[in-house]
Amino acid sequence: MSYPDAIQNALDELGRLPGIGPKGAQRITYWLLARSSEDARRLTDSICALKESISFCPQCWDFAEDGGLCRICADPRRDVSLLCVVEEPRDVAAIERTGEYRGRYHVLHGSLSPMDGVGPDQLRVRELMSRLSGDELQEVIIATNPTVEGETTAVYLAKTIKQLGYKVTRPASGLPMGGDIEFADELTLGRAFEARREI
Amino acid sequence: MSYPDAIQNALDELGRLPGIGPKGAQRITYWLLARSSEDARRLTDSICALKESISFCPQCWDFAEDGGLCRICADPRRDVSLLCVVEEPRDVAAIERTGEYRGRYHVLHGSLSPMDGVGPDQLRVRELMSRLSGDELQEVIIATNPTVEGETTAVYLAKTIKQLGYKVTRPASGLPMGGDIEFADELTLGRAFEARREI
Repeated sequence: MSYPDAIQNALDELGRLPGIGPKGAQRITYWLLARSSEDARRLTDSICALKESISFCPQCWDFAEDGGLCRICADPRRDVSLLCVVEEPRDVAAIERTGEYRGRYHVLHGSLSPMDGVGPDQLRVRELMSRLSGDELQEVIIATNPTVEGETTAVYLAKTIKQLGYKVTRPASGLPMGGDIEFADELTLGRAFEARREI
Repeated sequence: MSYPDAIQNALDELGRLPGIGPKGAQRITYWLLARSSEDARRLTDSICALKESISFCPQCWDFAEDGGLCRICADPRRDVSLLCVVEEPRDVAAIERTGEYRGRYHVLHGSLSPMDGVGPDQLRVRELMSRLSGDELQEVIIATNPTVEGETTAVYLAKTIKQLGYKVTRPASGLPMGGDIEFADELTLGRAFEARREI
């Protein structure tokens, strides 16, 4: 089957998006063809705006708009005594959804991985260190992923930041809520026992 | 969490696409943010081109480009003695992928569904009937879906087209290849037995 060029192009481009295979691309393409031009225009405009107006916050390196500070850095109600270090902007979004944290963030844009040539200079570590000053900051929460790279990054940062006299913490590891002890991996279950709390 | 407006917009618009939920929209948005502007531009251009240059073939009502005939109708090597009637353009694509059919198509753009107010006038039935003339056409294959609506449409069309003196056929119903008899539904298994063939 040779599709018209415009359809084949759309199939190719949509099929390159993460999580969308050939079937998904076909489904979206036919859906777009059945929609009004205005619907398609709203979609393409939103993608263009994404690339045009989104920049990095010069303070925390999360996404921000039009070259300014991000909403969290610009919010005077956020607790300046807490700083949470994460790997990626999507981690900020995930932590914000919990509603449990009212401090500020710092986005590293990756994790230490010497095997892949990623050292502190490839991450926003220097920018983090230059933020660590003043009396207001008390605690740095290192919320990198509980993976080999994330743990390595956490150990490295903790060592450096502790020397500056700040309290350094890390989110608890343990059983995920709603999970089954039977199906937990050994490492997670071991951590959960190690960090057990009196009830 | 309040995302920057441009990100929230993209999340909303991508989340409206079929088969993409909030998680998928987030994944694609962050992926687009990490890509070059050119990559995003290629995607949006392909969607715009889809809406601008794709039209319906005035003969078979499949998708065509720039107001002309579709590739199949314009291809002189296709067998004009066969006409295959389908519900949607995606059915043409599916049948073409088999490589088993070399005739032409007619796309109804739906199936009869009196409950939803879809009668012959809401489909491309009149256009189909006006194509049924001349000595060259010999067989009309009604490849509507094996659903209640598709079967109803097939019965209706078969009755009308037989009166004009053409042979009318329908693709065989039966067990899907690679399927398990154990898990086949009664209707499919019944049809498969009814239409059994000597080997």
